[in-house]
Amino acid sequence: MKAGENQTLLTDLYQLTMAQAYFRAQRAASATFSLFIRSYPPERGYFVSAGLQDVLDYLESLSFDAAEIDFLDSQKIFFPDFLNHLAKLRFTGQVWAIPEGQILFTDEPVIEVTAPIIEAQIVETFIINQIHLQSLIATKAARCVHAAGGRTVVDFALRRTHGIDAGMKVARASYLAGFAGTSNVKAGQRYGIPLVGTMAHSFVSSFEREIDAFRAYAATFPANAILLIDTYDTIAGAKNAVQVGREMAQRGQKLLGVRLDSGDMAALSVEVRRILDDEGLTEVKIIGSGGLDEFELAQLTAANAPFDSYGVGTKMGVSADQPWSDIAYKLVEYDARPVLKLSTGKSSWPGRKQLFRVKDSRGQAQGDTIGLRDEELPGERLLTKVMHDGKRMAGYPSLPELREIFVREFAALPESVRALRQPSRFPVEFSAKLKSLREQLAEKTR
Amino acid sequence: MKAGENQTLLTDLYQLTMAQAYFRAQRAASATFSLFIRSYPPERGYFVSAGLQDVLDYLESLSFDAAEIDFLDSQKIFFPDFLNHLAKLRFTGQVWAIPEGQILFTDEPVIEVTAPIIEAQIVETFIINQIHLQSLIATKAARCVHAAGGRTVVDFALRRTHGIDAGMKVARASYLAGFAGTSNVKAGQRYGIPLVGTMAHSFVSSFEREIDAFRAYAATFPANAILLIDTYDTIAGAKNAVQVGREMAQRGQKLLGVRLDSGDMAALSVEVRRILDDEGLTEVKIIGSGGLDEFELAQLTAANAPFDSYGVGTKMGVSADQPWSDIAYKLVEYDARPVLKLSTGKSSWPGRKQLFRVKDSRGQAQGDTIGLRDEELPGERLLTKVMHDGKRMAGYPSLPELREIFVREFAALPESVRALRQPSRFPVEFSAKLKSLREQLAEKTR
Repeated sequence: MKAGENQTLLTDLYQLTMAQAYFRAQRAASATFSLFIRSYPPERGYFVSAGLQDVLDYLESLSFDAAEIDFLDSQKIFFPDFLNHLAKLRFTGQVWAIPEGQILFTDEPVIEVTAPIIEAQIVETFIINQIHLQSLIATKAARCVHAAGGRTVVDFALRRTHGIDAGMKVARASYLAGFAGTSNVKAGQRYGIPLVGTMAHSFVSSFEREIDAFRAYAATFPANAILLIDTYDTIAGAKNAVQVGREMAQRGQKLLGVRLDSGDMAALSVEVRRILDDEGLTEVKIIGSGGLDEFELAQLTAANAPFDSYGVGTKMGVSADQPWSDIAYKLVEYDARPVLKLSTGKSSWPGRKQLFRVKDSRGQAQGDTIGLRDEELPGERLLTKVMHDGKRMAGYPSLPELREIFVREFAALPESVRALRQPSRFPVEFSAKLKSLREQLAEKTR
Repeated sequence: MKAGENQTLLTDLYQLTMAQAYFRAQRAASATFSLFIRSYPPERGYFVSAGLQDVLDYLESLSFDAAEIDFLDSQKIFFPDFLNHLAKLRFTGQVWAIPEGQILFTDEPVIEVTAPIIEAQIVETFIINQIHLQSLIATKAARCVHAAGGRTVVDFALRRTHGIDAGMKVARASYLAGFAGTSNVKAGQRYGIPLVGTMAHSFVSSFEREIDAFRAYAATFPANAILLIDTYDTIAGAKNAVQVGREMAQRGQKLLGVRLDSGDMAALSVEVRRILDDEGLTEVKIIGSGGLDEFELAQLTAANAPFDSYGVGTKMGVSADQPWSDIAYKLVEYDARPVLKLSTGKSSWPGRKQLFRVKDSRGQAQGDTIGLRDEELPGERLLTKVMHDGKRMAGYPSLPELREIFVREFAALPESVRALRQPSRFPVEFSAKLKSLREQLAEKTR
């Protein structure tokens, strides 16, 4: 967004035309919408929930400003009484949600919004937009962390995320799902995420000789220099780094690391490690980057490549193998009447819901049941009330706390469900009550 | 971004650490960076340039605010003299670029930035971010328009674009590349893009009977009602729409259209057209949506499916088959010395450049030559100066003018290059001077 610009028009036109039709037909009753993911993309066995904080910020501050109302008026399709209604509109509803960092599966309610139907309707676009992006990226990032087998992973994606907002949310979502830091300085400022990064090829090539670039950098950052060694030739670069590392040692300083960004990463890392170790630079770390994703990380882990950490960029930041998920926000109740949709391949489950997860005595997740909100079923109830009458509940977890939720819940997953390829399906069932409600409604609708 | 938040920290940390190393080493000479796309993703034969306007806005307003400087100071890696330098820093450089809406190919310079190296370096992240996203989407959108064979295509992507900024830029880039409108109301307000959209399944399912929903909508929008007919059963929905269309006709009104969003689109559109025509509703339009992309549009076009227009969402908005491109911003000259990078698979071409496009007498593009900026070669010179000493040149084209550039330049492309699958390669060569400069430098570097 442009600085200072109001965001309430960040919605689809049909939300506002429908709102006007509800308004003119005097349909103002309470509606519940449920947000869920319809299906697993290939190679996905779980999702990581993220984005709720931005949704709550948005709902709490929702209001049309004068410029927005004037713009709508200029479209010549809205009546003055409806525009007056919009000008005064605030979000006054209730929101139930599972926490950010929690693991979820298809069909499971992530967020349920209950509010007068106009309010609950016009917020659809923004809510889907933020939960879709952040959960997509948190899921991709969790896969990368898992694949890296204990090595540190940091976010280098900002330059190729889809725009600025994505750059910020990718930094946050990947940190939520176990990344250790980000190169995105604004994300460091806004979210308190640790910052990482040292030099690019341009720095090296701006000097006539690579070693001069390394020396200049080490002189400025004697405590935390990581030298990029592949601008011309990785092995020659490693030898130049060794030379500078030796010079630093003579000054009582320590070269922190070297970075490899191209070529045969597994083979080069072994060779570079040997070159460093041969000169006694055993503490100098090797950082890998350049087009990495969870599949390449898993290969490097399997090969036991001697990297200490990885910078993961574009393919994580756009979730390259699966850049979208089939997420939907569907009306499940209107005026206390459960409703459903039967469109081919896109049918929905009626009613307000709760999600129950059963764990064994060791804390391992055994299975989920999607039930109605007021059911009493075995297991932990994962949806909690996070907003009441348009005001968020106290005690929203901090980002470090959300990271702990992720670590705990990810550890509770069966390894077969966490697999990078062809994961097995975590058992999710619908309660008997919910199944019978749906059957009943489908019957009636047909 | 949050409202009012400054954007200058939207950069990678290494831009700032390199900047400090340049500063401490008193390297302040002029540098030129060149932005280009390294390779064609599968199924791509051309790219559409987009995003320059945001880059110029950014460069013109670049400055660190006090909160940003304080935050950098808190990182304990920056010296006070450098932070003072940053606090006063503005972008004072020269920018050459090809226009938005222009067609381009791999290796071709899209933007060249010449400025004191610190300025030219720290803007890298934002420039890549915006040009990458907008060119990616403009290219995907151009493919959709081409595939639709003359039918109108509009943007429905906002809910699943990667964040808010992407939602805005997708609306703009797709409109630039021939889309007729967007559902994104904010994009209508900011960019003047025509708005489209009517109703969702939730509107239908909030009523007990589909026909009541249609009647309520038609009562509110007697001049522009488009009824969504697949909530329960498309054929039954079409019959309900016919009923409402008849009632509207009796009131002297006209049903504008119906929308299909699921199922076998080609078969259903034929059947729905017949149902409408049988009742004399021959002017009622049929709009198709639901997971469409250029490949499905091409199938519907080939089948001559009787759609009048299409709403294209997620797969265009995230460029689903190719959600990123291998775009780079590389140092090509420092202190009047041409430079290059030789990293495996990522080597660059040295020097400031110009792009020459030869067209035949009918205006058809024949081939491009990438040369040095001061060369005189046959063809139209595609890069022009768009910013001088940090101020943009007058006369930046309006969005409608940029749309005309796209239409003209796309029409000039050989059909084989525009093909959706396995396009042929447009001839692009490097000038003899550029090749010899590169050879000379590579020799010297090795």
